[in-house]
Amino acid sequence: MDSPQRIELTAIGIVSTDVPPAQIGRRRRELISTITLDPALAPALTGLEEYSHLIVLFWMDRAPAMTSLMQRPRGDSTLPAKGAFAMRTRNRPNPIGLAVVDLIERVDNRLLVRRLDAYDGTPVIDIKPYDHYDVFTEIRVPSWSNSARGTPPA
Amino acid sequence: MDSPQRIELTAIGIVSTDVPPAQIGRRRRELISTITLDPALAPALTGLEEYSHLIVLFWMDRAPAMTSLMQRPRGDSTLPAKGAFAMRTRNRPNPIGLAVVDLIERVDNRLLVRRLDAYDGTPVIDIKPYDHYDVFTEIRVPSWSNSARGTPPA
Repeated sequence: MDSPQRIELTAIGIVSTDVPPAQIGRRRRELISTITLDPALAPALTGLEEYSHLIVLFWMDRAPAMTSLMQRPRGDSTLPAKGAFAMRTRNRPNPIGLAVVDLIERVDNRLLVRRLDAYDGTPVIDIKPYDHYDVFTEIRVPSWSNSARGTPPA
Repeated sequence: MDSPQRIELTAIGIVSTDVPPAQIGRRRRELISTITLDPALAPALTGLEEYSHLIVLFWMDRAPAMTSLMQRPRGDSTLPAKGAFAMRTRNRPNPIGLAVVDLIERVDNRLLVRRLDAYDGTPVIDIKPYDHYDVFTEIRVPSWSNSARGTPPA
């Protein structure tokens, strides 16, 4: 690339949860959170409740500035370092978080969701329906992945 | 929200494909594209090739400015209008595209991928491994969804 291209986004809403940041990762599967959208955007949710699952993109605003392109997964000193794009770590050039969540309920500009591993107060930048073309069941993941070890992502 | 929060991203790479924009949607399943990362970021790809599938986030830089929060899916006049967040349309507040792709090959700072429905020259903003916690097979989608109609997303 000739020069890095700058892109500007606007938050569309915000995450609310009572669960403190230190517990978000390990309690991911049971987490219930609320996404409160900018009320002016409520019409853009029309029909979303016809889907069971959503993809939520959020801005990890408390991620420290990136210091290294590679890290040991979960800081585990027995594992070789892997690249930021090979992990779901917050340590990445653009700290965008992505979670596939269950949509429990929509009321006006509020969504109640399960499994959103975002801290309280996190800005949401996009919401998309999760559809059959996002589902691949024959996948390969490395032995150092969280899922291969039976633990939720960090 | 008190006031919209502005967020700044930097492109990490760029998409190359020979397929013209008008054919990208309908040829999605067979599309082979190259993602060329900023060479300085190549170490951040280390280990990515141990995954079979990736999630690619890209910036749909040729999307027209958003004019409406609701649209008829695929412009189909027989369908009621649905919200931007209930569809994968480019017509959304932050035009971020998301595709789950097959990783065919990685060579240095280049990834060869299948099924990336992004135009030639599109900026890439993040790459994440696709893992078991992204896979949900018991999902509900509405009858007006592309997938329910057997067509790829627009």
